[in-house]
Amino acid sequence: MEALKVLKERRSVRKYLPKSVPKEVIEDIIDCGRLAATALNRQPWKFVVVTEEERRKHIADICEYGRFIAQAPVCVAVLCEDTKYMLEDGAAATQNILLAAKAHGLGSCWVAGHKKLYAQEVAEYLNAAENDKLISLIAIGYPEQEGNPPKKSLKEVLCWEKC
Amino acid sequence: MEALKVLKERRSVRKYLPKSVPKEVIEDIIDCGRLAATALNRQPWKFVVVTEEERRKHIADICEYGRFIAQAPVCVAVLCEDTKYMLEDGAAATQNILLAAKAHGLGSCWVAGHKKLYAQEVAEYLNAAENDKLISLIAIGYPEQEGNPPKKSLKEVLCWEKC
Repeated sequence: MEALKVLKERRSVRKYLPKSVPKEVIEDIIDCGRLAATALNRQPWKFVVVTEEERRKHIADICEYGRFIAQAPVCVAVLCEDTKYMLEDGAAATQNILLAAKAHGLGSCWVAGHKKLYAQEVAEYLNAAENDKLISLIAIGYPEQEGNPPKKSLKEVLCWEKC
Repeated sequence: MEALKVLKERRSVRKYLPKSVPKEVIEDIIDCGRLAATALNRQPWKFVVVTEEERRKHIADICEYGRFIAQAPVCVAVLCEDTKYMLEDGAAATQNILLAAKAHGLGSCWVAGHKKLYAQEVAEYLNAAENDKLISLIAIGYPEQEGNPPKKSLKEVLCWEKC
């Protein structure tokens, strides 16, 4: 799939078909995550792929806005070492994972991790090291329904030389 | 250019050819930025494209690690309203811009904004509203030389079910 098309057409997907995602596809998606931009080349990330239904349900129960993690065949937790730029790095990796999923014909949805009250509980459930912080959770699966929220126009968000 | 190739092969570029970037290409790149994932569809971003040499030089002088902004034909400042997820949103948009540049045959480099002592000075220079925070600066241009820093292997960063 063409890159500019993927960049422009990715939208959050919260309803998934009951169809599992091949392991090699998941690995290829995480491969794109690990190659995101990262400050000082620190790559502070770790990606935990949760596919077991019981485990996804447990995570979905903890996360207030991530109930659909129970239905999605794949949940990726992005964890980062507690570095100065962990949020920027983790968010860049998350965005790459959303785009890679789209490129593979999959839908995805970013569920907030950092700053959420459940962040530490999820990290502990995933057996994360104490210094590894949850940045995001990503539900992935074949899309049953794609969102189409209204977007600001280019004109509204672009300035030349100064605001 | 194929999406998965762009996702995997993008690397920071800090040396650029003295060749300007067509306006429609810049607009297409920002278009990809504005369509990045954003918490609660807030889209708190504003993109300021700086192409005037004097203005780029001024920004480069302020930023300790962004000297190459003076040489790159384009500098994009990503600003976000001070929302709970401004860093995640701004970083996702920044990553999209880096990828869109690559898809257009351009090189780019992410220069940290948020948490830098110069963030406010740059925002003021760009005439940003008081509530708009500098998240990142992105140098863009035709690549003279691309970096190739060592990357952690997939095996090092991927876990199944738990860490």
